[in-house]
Amino acid sequence: MTAIHQAGHALLTVMLPYGDPIHKVTIIPRGMALGLTQQLPMDEKHNYSREYLEAQIAILLGGRIAEEITIGSITTGAGNDLERATDLARRMVCEWGMSTTMGPLTFGKKEEQIFLGREIAQHQDYSEDTALRIDQEVKRFVTDNYTRAYEIITEHKQKILDMADALLARETLDADQVKRICAGLPLEEPTSATGSSTPTAPRESKPAKERPAPSIVPQIPPRPVTQE
Amino acid sequence: MTAIHQAGHALLTVMLPYGDPIHKVTIIPRGMALGLTQQLPMDEKHNYSREYLEAQIAILLGGRIAEEITIGSITTGAGNDLERATDLARRMVCEWGMSTTMGPLTFGKKEEQIFLGREIAQHQDYSEDTALRIDQEVKRFVTDNYTRAYEIITEHKQKILDMADALLARETLDADQVKRICAGLPLEEPTSATGSSTPTAPRESKPAKERPAPSIVPQIPPRPVTQE
Amino acid sequence: MTAIHQAGHALLTVMLPYGDPIHKVTIIPRGMALGLTQQLPMDEKHNYSREYLEAQIAILLGGRIAEEITIGSITTGAGNDLERATDLARRMVCEWGMSTTMGPLTFGKKEEQIFLGREIAQHQDYSEDTALRIDQEVKRFVTDNYTRAYEIITEHKQKILDMADALLARETLDADQVKRICAGLPLEEPTSATGSSTPTAPRESKPAKERPAPSIVPQIPPRPVTQE
Amino acid sequence: MTAIHQAGHALLTVMLPYGDPIHKVTIIPRGMALGLTQQLPMDEKHNYSREYLEAQIAILLGGRIAEEITIGSITTGAGNDLERATDLARRMVCEWGMSTTMGPLTFGKKEEQIFLGREIAQHQDYSEDTALRIDQEVKRFVTDNYTRAYEIITEHKQKILDMADALLARETLDADQVKRICAGLPLEEPTSATGSSTPTAPRESKPAKERPAPSIVPQIPPRPVTQE
Amino acid sequence: MTAIHQAGHALLTVMLPYGDPIHKVTIIPRGMALGLTQQLPMDEKHNYSREYLEAQIAILLGGRIAEEITIGSITTGAGNDLERATDLARRMVCEWGMSTTMGPLTFGKKEEQIFLGREIAQHQDYSEDTALRIDQEVKRFVTDNYTRAYEIITEHKQKILDMADALLARETLDADQVKRICAGLPLEEPTSATGSSTPTAPRESKPAKERPAPSIVPQIPPRPVTQE
Amino acid sequence: MTAIHQAGHALLTVMLPYGDPIHKVTIIPRGMALGLTQQLPMDEKHNYSREYLEAQIAILLGGRIAEEITIGSITTGAGNDLERATDLARRMVCEWGMSTTMGPLTFGKKEEQIFLGREIAQHQDYSEDTALRIDQEVKRFVTDNYTRAYEIITEHKQKILDMADALLARETLDADQVKRICAGLPLEEPTSATGSSTPTAPRESKPAKERPAPSIVPQIPPRPVTQE
Repeated sequence: MTAIHQAGHALLTVMLPYGDPIHKVTIIPRGMALGLTQQLPMDEKHNYSREYLEAQIAILLGGRIAEEITIGSITTGAGNDLERATDLARRMVCEWGMSTTMGPLTFGKKEEQIFLGREIAQHQDYSEDTALRIDQEVKRFVTDNYTRAYEIITEHKQKILDMADALLARETLDADQVKRICAGLPLEEPTSATGSSTPTAPRESKPAKERPAPSIVPQIPPRPVTQE
Repeated sequence: MTAIHQAGHALLTVMLPYGDPIHKVTIIPRGMALGLTQQLPMDEKHNYSREYLEAQIAILLGGRIAEEITIGSITTGAGNDLERATDLARRMVCEWGMSTTMGPLTFGKKEEQIFLGREIAQHQDYSEDTALRIDQEVKRFVTDNYTRAYEIITEHKQKILDMADALLARETLDADQVKRICAGLPLEEPTSATGSSTPTAPRESKPAKERPAPSIVPQIPPRPVTQE
Repeated sequence: MTAIHQAGHALLTVMLPYGDPIHKVTIIPRGMALGLTQQLPMDEKHNYSREYLEAQIAILLGGRIAEEITIGSITTGAGNDLERATDLARRMVCEWGMSTTMGPLTFGKKEEQIFLGREIAQHQDYSEDTALRIDQEVKRFVTDNYTRAYEIITEHKQKILDMADALLARETLDADQVKRICAGLPLEEPTSATGSSTPTAPRESKPAKERPAPSIVPQIPPRPVTQE
Repeated sequence: MTAIHQAGHALLTVMLPYGDPIHKVTIIPRGMALGLTQQLPMDEKHNYSREYLEAQIAILLGGRIAEEITIGSITTGAGNDLERATDLARRMVCEWGMSTTMGPLTFGKKEEQIFLGREIAQHQDYSEDTALRIDQEVKRFVTDNYTRAYEIITEHKQKILDMADALLARETLDADQVKRICAGLPLEEPTSATGSSTPTAPRESKPAKERPAPSIVPQIPPRPVTQE
Repeated sequence: MTAIHQAGHALLTVMLPYGDPIHKVTIIPRGMALGLTQQLPMDEKHNYSREYLEAQIAILLGGRIAEEITIGSITTGAGNDLERATDLARRMVCEWGMSTTMGPLTFGKKEEQIFLGREIAQHQDYSEDTALRIDQEVKRFVTDNYTRAYEIITEHKQKILDMADALLARETLDADQVKRICAGLPLEEPTSATGSSTPTAPRESKPAKERPAPSIVPQIPPRPVTQE
Repeated sequence: MTAIHQAGHALLTVMLPYGDPIHKVTIIPRGMALGLTQQLPMDEKHNYSREYLEAQIAILLGGRIAEEITIGSITTGAGNDLERATDLARRMVCEWGMSTTMGPLTFGKKEEQIFLGREIAQHQDYSEDTALRIDQEVKRFVTDNYTRAYEIITEHKQKILDMADALLARETLDADQVKRICAGLPLEEPTSATGSSTPTAPRESKPAKERPAPSIVPQIPPRPVTQE
């Protein structure tokens, strides 16, 4: 199930525009996580576009959708993904003014408690009616991207299964391997093949030395994606 | 009454699919509890499916339903079971996104108070209208499984009475004994009988050595079931 | 007025089924209380049925109703009784799932403040609409039993007056004396009378040695009844 | 204005049934108060009837009504009286179950903060709808008694003016003097007059030695009345 | 702008009945304040009539209205005046029972936190519906007096301009000077003029020695007016 | 993107009346900020007019609008600007009484916690209905100025692009340079040109020595504008 879950994250990372490119995906448990899909930040950006954030929401929901489509059941394992997707959607509405309905305003006042060194409460300084419209916008951001991700994964169900098989066999897949599966190609390039047979997609990624090190994961927002 | 209560838990543990297999049931008081129905986790899982959780809710409600059907009265003793069933249903809606109506979002933000070392308050960060729809979904999860459990126990009322009698006589029943009663068989196999007369159900359980030790009870979620 | 009040509690304790049998009733002030009606727990039970709890609510309201019917006025003295009756009704709805309308769910999350060693706040984790329906159910439990108790006391108004007179004369009545008044018999048995003239009710109580000591009053729930 | 205010309290204390008899009235400032109308508790009671409490509400409102009727203006001076009248009415509804509409229930849970040694917050544990009906009942108790007091003072406006004149001349009036004014009699009895000319009302009060000392003012509820 | 603002306060202090007489007006900054209009309490009163309080609200709003009418713009400088006018109106409704709609009740319970030595929170102990009606009454008290003040200042716009000019020239005006401007007279009496040419208004004020010293400013309520 | 963002702020600072004149604009990161548009306070004022505050809201929104119009995407970078614009609008409604709908009242009571040395909570002391109308007014102030700013930037899109180019080339632009771009003139004046070819706008600013030093930035309200 972990393999299916990570495959869902990874497929969407490759398929959706605007997101960071995939770095690797693994089902080796790490700390609390049962698996990990790691994205490679294109540059050390501090600014995230609405399109980037919506892609992240879809990728976060991808693990659960993959389980739902291939296994036919929802599990508690998607919980943290859902929390992070909901949180991103809420910040898009309340902090970054990205909901056309709510307008370019912010909602809620953060209260930091100095003596504890961290924010404890988000003070609600708006009316019940505004709270209702915020909820509706947050739900819309999540469900729109759920639907989008659901359609992509349904269309590419076989690739999810292939990638899960490959993960069970090898435990970790690198960016090229994930891209080959998503392109419907065999996992390994024929050893002596010329460049002409190489699919285009993997080549599009810039050489590793031109990018920041993969370990530099973007901090919140958005938090590292697809850890399960 | 404790025997009837535990018999209700145990019958549903055997009858419902998706749940963990039964380990034993007892009416020997232990700590605060007047009795205990212990389930055997099939494997050390961290992931629970929606079907598993709904079975747990039904099993939790089973003790009270057994009292209601056989004795004709509701007592305060089911209180803790109800609290845990309600809590599971609320987490299915708010934490694990398992309500189709509410969608794959999470609701509420946990606030941990570091200096106390534990979570105190679940911060409500949604509107009153959302709160109402959450309540309706939580109630639906509980009452649907109440109805399901009520039908099963009504149909097998005599087995509840038999199991309660056996519990009063022996204080503790193991998995095979519970399964024999649920299958309508005599409590003990004839000593020299061949395997052909053995009912199928008990044999389906894997030998104890292939399973994790019964003492490894799954932590929350879900909490150990049917302690009264 | 204290005598009338205690007589109201005592009459209902005898008249209502499902409750614990009466032990004694007194108008000697004790601590903060102006009088006391003491029930004898039939056994050290930890489980209370819905019928038992409804009887306790009626008994708690009995003191006030006796004043209302005999003296024609309501006083502040019934305050603590009302608080305890309301609290029992609220727990029946919110903690023990005894309201058919609300279903077998629990409502509200208790927050214990460790450093104070006791629960301070009952956290409301439900919607305003649910709060309204809880209020309606709590009121229904209280007013239904008020009506029931009102009818019994109206019918036996003279016995209340007789018992109050006896209390003013003797300050304390034991279980047999209360039962004789409730049965319309003279307070004392003729000294040399044979058992045939003894009313049945008092004899039903088991000899004191077979019961737990009267001083072992059941803790909450339900709290000791009818202290004024 | 202080004389008018105290005269309003004193007139109602004499005119209304069920209240404690008047002890004295003064316009000599005492502590924070500009004047004082002191009632004599008939006995050391702990129990207050609904009629007694309604009389206290009317008496508390009497000072303000007297100003309104004689001077034609409302002032801030009545503030404390209003707060105490409102508080009594609220306790009648929420604590003593004296509103027929709300029924014999209590509303609100007191939270005592031990470490501060006193109650700080009245926890609202009921729905918004219940809160609204409580407000309506509290307002009804206050306005009904306001109307009753308004009619009495309007009818006896001249006596208010007479009593205020007497207060300005003598600063303090005792019970007999207040009662003579309320009966329309001259302030002092003719020195050699026989008992036949004495009005009935003052004689109804029991001799002082049979009563508790006037200094024993009943504690809350209800708090000492008519201090301004 | 400060001169215009203070002129607005001062004009209303002279024009409105029921208020305390003016003492002086200045545009010399004092502490945080850019200017000051000081009223002379007629006597050391502790009691304020509804008419007095409404005059204070109007006077507080006068500075802002003067800016609005003469300069045509609203500024942030009136903020503290608005807060104090709103607070007075709220206390008239909630503390002093001066709203006919709300009746002679008080609303809200003050909580004093002893260990901080001051009141922190006004506990809302009423329903949402009552809160709405309180808001409407508070708004009505403020806007009615805003309208009243607006009409007076519109009618006497030229006097505001004259007083502002005089303030810019002299920085401080005493009571007689303010009254002369408000009466449309030249700022200084002709030195050798006889009393017949003196306007009536200034003479109405009692000689300073009969009044309490101007420095004895009434404490809250109401707080000193027209400090900007 | 930072250059475009700052150009949006700077263009509106020049184009809108009532605001403080521009001092300089830079894309050199400073502390947490990626860039800065600095305004020159015309005088050390403590009073801000409604028109000034509305200009500040528009200027704050300018960065985001510039991104939206030239790049076609909204990013998270505008978050702090939105928060400050929303906060200004809220204070105009709640603190400075600048909404005609809400009237010259203040809403909310600030609670300062002395022992922390700063304000933590804004106490809501008004009804839900008032909260809703406040929200509507706050939104109106923000969206009206958003629309106004959107129209200006749309009309002058090319100037935004030119200013961004200049910023990328020089990193910092002074007031004259910004004004020349906004006037559609080449960035540098021809060295030997006579004054006749100089555009009027830059000359309107008073010489630096007559103004307060640029480093004296007005404190809240309003907070320094356009730091990103």
